[in-house]
Amino acid sequence: MISLEVQHTDGKARAGVLSTPHGRVQTPIFMPVGTAGAVKGVTPEQLTSSGSRMILANTYHMMLRPGGRTVEELGGLHAMMGWDGPILTDSGGFQVFSLAHLRQIDDEKVVFQSHVDGSLEELTPGRCMEIQRQLGADVIMQLDECPPGDATLEHVARAVDRSILWAKECKRAWLAGGESVQSLFGIQQGGVFADLRARSAEALVELNLPGYAIGGLSVGEGHEAMVLALDAADSQFPADRPRYLMGVGEPRDILAAVQRGIDMFDCVLPTRNARNAFAFTWGGRLRLRNAQWTADPAPLDENCSCYACSNFSRGTIRHLFMAKEMLAATLLTIHNLHFFAEFMAAIRSSIASGTLESDAKQWVSQMYASRRIPGDEK
Amino acid sequence: MISLEVQHTDGKARAGVLSTPHGRVQTPIFMPVGTAGAVKGVTPEQLTSSGSRMILANTYHMMLRPGGRTVEELGGLHAMMGWDGPILTDSGGFQVFSLAHLRQIDDEKVVFQSHVDGSLEELTPGRCMEIQRQLGADVIMQLDECPPGDATLEHVARAVDRSILWAKECKRAWLAGGESVQSLFGIQQGGVFADLRARSAEALVELNLPGYAIGGLSVGEGHEAMVLALDAADSQFPADRPRYLMGVGEPRDILAAVQRGIDMFDCVLPTRNARNAFAFTWGGRLRLRNAQWTADPAPLDENCSCYACSNFSRGTIRHLFMAKEMLAATLLTIHNLHFFAEFMAAIRSSIASGTLESDAKQWVSQMYASRRIPGDEK
Repeated sequence: MISLEVQHTDGKARAGVLSTPHGRVQTPIFMPVGTAGAVKGVTPEQLTSSGSRMILANTYHMMLRPGGRTVEELGGLHAMMGWDGPILTDSGGFQVFSLAHLRQIDDEKVVFQSHVDGSLEELTPGRCMEIQRQLGADVIMQLDECPPGDATLEHVARAVDRSILWAKECKRAWLAGGESVQSLFGIQQGGVFADLRARSAEALVELNLPGYAIGGLSVGEGHEAMVLALDAADSQFPADRPRYLMGVGEPRDILAAVQRGIDMFDCVLPTRNARNAFAFTWGGRLRLRNAQWTADPAPLDENCSCYACSNFSRGTIRHLFMAKEMLAATLLTIHNLHFFAEFMAAIRSSIASGTLESDAKQWVSQMYASRRIPGDEK
Repeated sequence: MISLEVQHTDGKARAGVLSTPHGRVQTPIFMPVGTAGAVKGVTPEQLTSSGSRMILANTYHMMLRPGGRTVEELGGLHAMMGWDGPILTDSGGFQVFSLAHLRQIDDEKVVFQSHVDGSLEELTPGRCMEIQRQLGADVIMQLDECPPGDATLEHVARAVDRSILWAKECKRAWLAGGESVQSLFGIQQGGVFADLRARSAEALVELNLPGYAIGGLSVGEGHEAMVLALDAADSQFPADRPRYLMGVGEPRDILAAVQRGIDMFDCVLPTRNARNAFAFTWGGRLRLRNAQWTADPAPLDENCSCYACSNFSRGTIRHLFMAKEMLAATLLTIHNLHFFAEFMAAIRSSIASGTLESDAKQWVSQMYASRRIPGDEK
């Protein structure tokens, strides 16, 4: 099981330590995404040396290939991924609603067609717990229904009720497995509707779970709406439990969420941006395919100490992208993960020194005022 | 400049140390291929830790993209590739004859169409030396004409004469550049024709070059014909100069060549096989896509100490290939390069102990008798 020790607060923001069966990590924390059993483009050694301490894997992908049972036979996700630190698995719900061909959904189950081989698959709260037990992550997620960002109030309300029902079922199945080292998180839904978010949180907190996730955001509602939906999070969830904002992401969103009491984040942004040739820096994003870098012998970021910046120039990395060399994506992934690790470390220091509000303003203006920013490269 | 110190001999086989401007390496040596400025799938750190000590880059690819001048502006190949060890560049000739759309060839030049952007490019002996000076490798190659494995005696004879002519031109251009830290190698041609090989070697040795390469083999002539063509190599080239067999490769070919006095090798075999899911072991090649490995928790090779074998199972690596994760190719590349480094180290030990003939027989029977061998996976 996990536990959170809050060490510093600054307004609603908090910095602390999350203890897990696979070690202690500092919060607020950003978790790189290892969708199919690997964080794309890097080895676990490169993950560690770029400063990553806790990662996420997707239940949906692993249940379809190689399957929960095979993962268990191979020693679980930690053994498979060569990763000794903590792992979090999502429930598969989000991908069922976004990636799969959805066939049927009711209060008992969701039936969908696999994007891997077209087979019909079924996910119930009990099956969701069983698969995540086979995967063996430190933190597991309840099955939830995640409506799109433009869903009607009626649709979102139904999703809230169904997700509450599934939270109870998941808790029952999780407890029925006997004493577990895994920690179950409930997932708040409710879209941009404050009343629904409140109803969802209240029902989940009643279940007294080890942690709480905030779902259904970063699905197209926009930065302002997301921030509004997070405004009540600190009062809705108990202070001694970790709060996890799913699928976020963008540095300015992370800052706004930390300032509203969020402890954990995950997103494909740094790794996917890397494969698309975008490098994060404190001065904004660089597009490495631009011809301006062709003969530039400077590193991506003069002040960065990552492996890519210590050994390669912008010119070389641009060349590697143009020549379609795998090394290009690997180097930018290492750099972007290092940037996110440094960014979260800066946030924690800032909380400890009580200067997060002014620091956040300055960081956002540095990162987003520059002409270097691409449109929306997520 | 380079120099070779032979420390042990066993029959015609020899083990020693090649000193270069970027350090000393033990011979016989295998050089992984970094075609476009990167050994595909690995960082230079992973290259070093897998035991690689000297690498090759392709002049043809680098001259077309990003161009010799850009490489020079970026600090040369060593800076670009993040590689402090010795580098060898080929002349571009082989690729012009195999990859490009050949437009014109005469004794002065070869004109071809770039496979990158369709532009018309010209390579002369002088231009070949100029580009390789911009790239800055420790060992550079003369421009040569490399006919296919089934070429007629007439065709091969013409290629021998033209390659001798170009060797002289290259030496002149190389010397005209003033004192150089780069070492120019001549390239023997002659296909499978012993008389032509002898004529080629004699003319090259008269030029008194720092080293000699054997070209025009491993181009479809087969193992037996290749071995026959190498039989006279030790008597054709001076004992104090390194001998380099270009484009080889296959472990049994390397063994046969070492037994005939060859010191240096390069081939895409370990890296390309890795991307195609084949792992080299002392007991033969494993095809990691095979379903038999699905739930196998054992490493690729129980006795291997590489990063992949220390951290990942066959089951995981198979899964990563099925899921098209980049990590799959990276792990097998690390493993295969480690295997080649260990294989060359075993050859050197065997020469030092005077047991190469019997060791080679045993290794070949282990590696090629197994049912695990794929057809021709090169």
